[in-house]
Amino acid sequence: MHAVDLQQLTAEIRDFARARDWERYHTPKNLVMAMSVEMAELVEHFQWLTPEEAQAIASDPARRVPVEEEMADVLIYMLRLADVLGVDVEAAIADKMAKNARKYPPPAR
Amino acid sequence: MHAVDLQQLTAEIRDFARARDWERYHTPKNLVMAMSVEMAELVEHFQWLTPEEAQAIASDPARRVPVEEEMADVLIYMLRLADVLGVDVEAAIADKMAKNARKYPPPAR
Amino acid sequence: MHAVDLQQLTAEIRDFARARDWERYHTPKNLVMAMSVEMAELVEHFQWLTPEEAQAIASDPARRVPVEEEMADVLIYMLRLADVLGVDVEAAIADKMAKNARKYPPPAR
Amino acid sequence: MHAVDLQQLTAEIRDFARARDWERYHTPKNLVMAMSVEMAELVEHFQWLTPEEAQAIASDPARRVPVEEEMADVLIYMLRLADVLGVDVEAAIADKMAKNARKYPPPAR
Repeated sequence: MHAVDLQQLTAEIRDFARARDWERYHTPKNLVMAMSVEMAELVEHFQWLTPEEAQAIASDPARRVPVEEEMADVLIYMLRLADVLGVDVEAAIADKMAKNARKYPPPAR
Repeated sequence: MHAVDLQQLTAEIRDFARARDWERYHTPKNLVMAMSVEMAELVEHFQWLTPEEAQAIASDPARRVPVEEEMADVLIYMLRLADVLGVDVEAAIADKMAKNARKYPPPAR
Repeated sequence: MHAVDLQQLTAEIRDFARARDWERYHTPKNLVMAMSVEMAELVEHFQWLTPEEAQAIASDPARRVPVEEEMADVLIYMLRLADVLGVDVEAAIADKMAKNARKYPPPAR
Repeated sequence: MHAVDLQQLTAEIRDFARARDWERYHTPKNLVMAMSVEMAELVEHFQWLTPEEAQAIASDPARRVPVEEEMADVLIYMLRLADVLGVDVEAAIADKMAKNARKYPPPAR
């Protein structure tokens, strides 16, 4: 896993939607709904598992691939939403990490 | 928005959790639950808006920043989950994009 | 729609789970996850619809029945969760309605 | 917990919305979004708990009451949605229970 060009990836996702005439459906409201549904499909893989069974997915490729697909679905919609709203996700993550560091200072040693 | 080093970002998120002794809570099952809650906090911003009001968030920084924070929260948990499950999110997105292209061929011109 | 005996319905749902040896899966944590997934399946029916298209489901039985099924799935898990946690849902609703009335007083006329 | 008059309860919830001029927001699409957000607030109570800690909520009123409130919030929106869509939730649950019984026959003894 090396540097990812999010701008390039976002453009690919936009072109994919445009080529299928899906842009008219990709309003922010619809995209957050669709993304929350994909998130639930990710949750579904874990709902009946014990904590141990859930962790075991990490070392079982046959069960991990469907989980990876749901993770990717969420991320693809997230980049699409960022594109539609004009959000720089890299900056948003950096800002939130800094805010979290202020909100939850590390314990003194 | 340029190239993002996801490996570096994932390491920062891991270190953040480790410094606060939160790793024991970060099981895959707990992380997907927590991520779905953050997703709902993103949905909450849009629930009562008309499609037009939702789109207007794009051009109103005062309302866009809280939305960006919720997007970042989801993404931070997603990278944490990928770390815990050993998932390469960049490869997962590329694989899913290729699968989507096969599943939804572009209309003939 | 007349009086519903929730106690009777809750007992039926419990017996259904017991007969299939599913009680061991029906921990509160698993049930809220499963219920949130059913909720998303309900959301899925509405995600790409305009407000007008969504309202039209009310008068189209062919499209309303699948929506009713998802609503029922959420409610069945909700009664199961209430059973497992010892919650009286009727009292919980009455208490919350009273609290909402205090929190949001009706506008003066 | 005795017989609940859902029709009466639904009317109360409708009157509550009407008195506050909220009916215009209560489109089916908005209501499913709002209900999914309330569901996530329920999930939030359980996200970091072990299965044992989650079950212990049943016997700890101080921790059970906030959970009951989130359950009520979901149910109130569910009855509001049923009202707006013209769904008879009692019939919907009965139909789904019958369908589940056909889909998952009890194991032979």
